[in-house]
Amino acid sequence: MSQVYAARRERLRERCSAGGSATALVSRPANVRYLAGAVPRGAVLLLGMGEDVLLCAGPPDEQGGDGRPDQALRLQTLPAPGGDCAVAAADLAAAQGADSLAVEEHHLTVARHRALRSVAPRLRLADLGSAVEQLRLVKDEEEISLLRIGAEIADQALSELLESILVGRTERHLALELERRLVDHGADGPAFTTSVATGPNAGRRGHCPTDRRVEEGDFLSVCLGAAYRGYRCEIGRTFVIGTSPADWQIELYDLVFAAQRAGRQALAPGAACRDVDRAARQMLDSAGYGEGLPPVTGHGVGLEIDEDPQLAPAAMGKLDACVPVTVEPGVHLPGRGGVRIDDTLVVRPEADGGPELLTITTKELLAL
Amino acid sequence: MSQVYAARRERLRERCSAGGSATALVSRPANVRYLAGAVPRGAVLLLGMGEDVLLCAGPPDEQGGDGRPDQALRLQTLPAPGGDCAVAAADLAAAQGADSLAVEEHHLTVARHRALRSVAPRLRLADLGSAVEQLRLVKDEEEISLLRIGAEIADQALSELLESILVGRTERHLALELERRLVDHGADGPAFTTSVATGPNAGRRGHCPTDRRVEEGDFLSVCLGAAYRGYRCEIGRTFVIGTSPADWQIELYDLVFAAQRAGRQALAPGAACRDVDRAARQMLDSAGYGEGLPPVTGHGVGLEIDEDPQLAPAAMGKLDACVPVTVEPGVHLPGRGGVRIDDTLVVRPEADGGPELLTITTKELLAL
Repeated sequence: MSQVYAARRERLRERCSAGGSATALVSRPANVRYLAGAVPRGAVLLLGMGEDVLLCAGPPDEQGGDGRPDQALRLQTLPAPGGDCAVAAADLAAAQGADSLAVEEHHLTVARHRALRSVAPRLRLADLGSAVEQLRLVKDEEEISLLRIGAEIADQALSELLESILVGRTERHLALELERRLVDHGADGPAFTTSVATGPNAGRRGHCPTDRRVEEGDFLSVCLGAAYRGYRCEIGRTFVIGTSPADWQIELYDLVFAAQRAGRQALAPGAACRDVDRAARQMLDSAGYGEGLPPVTGHGVGLEIDEDPQLAPAAMGKLDACVPVTVEPGVHLPGRGGVRIDDTLVVRPEADGGPELLTITTKELLAL
Repeated sequence: MSQVYAARRERLRERCSAGGSATALVSRPANVRYLAGAVPRGAVLLLGMGEDVLLCAGPPDEQGGDGRPDQALRLQTLPAPGGDCAVAAADLAAAQGADSLAVEEHHLTVARHRALRSVAPRLRLADLGSAVEQLRLVKDEEEISLLRIGAEIADQALSELLESILVGRTERHLALELERRLVDHGADGPAFTTSVATGPNAGRRGHCPTDRRVEEGDFLSVCLGAAYRGYRCEIGRTFVIGTSPADWQIELYDLVFAAQRAGRQALAPGAACRDVDRAARQMLDSAGYGEGLPPVTGHGVGLEIDEDPQLAPAAMGKLDACVPVTVEPGVHLPGRGGVRIDDTLVVRPEADGGPELLTITTKELLAL
């Protein structure tokens, strides 16, 4: 694995040099992890003159975070507790003789940026922009295999829940049980706060579980994901509680299912992100649900649960092969509830069989 | 409650005016919640010319976050999804005729700060600093009562765990069970990631639960807390597994217990934060454990689990009455484990009975 991290850093270094900076400071935790293999709490990565250094606030194994740092990196621990590793990194870059340092202006606060300037006044601070996020977009097969395992874990946790009695249990309890099952099956933990939404809450994107209990006749929508060795996937399904769904429930479900399928089918290398969004969105729109739809119908996943690309009406850019994304349209009717269906897929060329579905739980409307 | 929030905003406005800014932009989520009663995802608060506005990225009840915003605030929802509320707030301040806006430079990133400047080029951006954090230091009795309820919940969750069989169960499972019990007893959720540490991991501050199983003869240290209506408390205890603790375990426990008691007894209005730290730290230091101690022996709690004041050797400032803090010294011996004892207390004057202990689980060394 060490070669993988070294190759990633080398690609970043090339981008920096092209931008006129010989050194770079990576502070955003997921970016540090991507380039260093681990991110102890508060750690930053310096791509320095001649050597790369992972600066940690304390001994790495006492700073939390999972994974071991790449052994090819020099580790440097701050002498005094409570210090800022980014400031120490700027100091080190200046001591190495660098004249400019590219920093992540979308992550560093104004106050930290000023502290960097003050510790190394002769160092020109440039903007690294989202160079690391761009490197992270296309995943290698090792990363995809970790996402695949995470998706299997989420599928298992969900399928076990469906075998249990649901009526009378609260959203909060169901969410906690799902999270326990994720860990039972080997997840590091949930990839994000598990969402369980019943009755009038069903179908709301990112709904925070409440004390509402599952009732006969409810829609029940669930969204969960596993973090597995740092990689995060997502699955969302909607069910009906009781033996016979109402007509409006069947109609709404069929509509969202068709929209989600259209979005999935639009995934291909070279497809514009906005076209994938439009494929799903226009079906909901032409059925009269255009108002109040969430701003995105899908997004990238990886070391973070919400990465680029965004599948949204104003999104720029096209999909590449080996980019994992969610497709997750939904409709929520205030006071009545709604439907969301959410899969994680990997964009693959037609010749390889088209998009690879990672979350394989059935999307038939189950009456539980 | 509306009057409480209005009074807090009025105090902040006075501080801003004294600093030369008629308007202020509060973006740090816990600060927004403190002043507005709720913080929908992405929301910011503008203390504007003549009126205060809570700017939300979408309809507040669809943006997650708990609590309802103060009804005395005007709510403004961004017209386009995906926008930055801070940028919209700067635009609004300029439209109101403000000539300067104080912002939280310790929270805004360099990139967002630049976007503010670009949308409102004639608005002078000043630094609000940690003005809101300073207001949050001393709690009112309503806030303290929420912390007290959270502490009761954590005590209950912990006491139930102690009644169950522990040997053979993993750190991860015990942590998940504690979190489930917190919710059972009415918590919004855990105040922070529950830490369960066994054997050689015991006593490590902020240890992330692993798959290690509890064994006979282990130290077991647990640190958990409940979030209750936004307020977060913390309790930590260390136990011994099996009938008869080893001599070194008893000695280490007694030492940490004495250090923690010394820290608690040093809590008083007017006491220097560094003196409270020293009271606990010097006992561990003189027993030969000075190396490798965590940088703080306690910290404030409230809407965030780690707030000012910090109880640390270089901390400035003194304690006030009605400031809730943790006292949590610990010793970790690499390869052997260790002991941490952690309480949440409220600083009270001697005349009111001295420090009020919120987390009342026994600190006797229990053999489980």
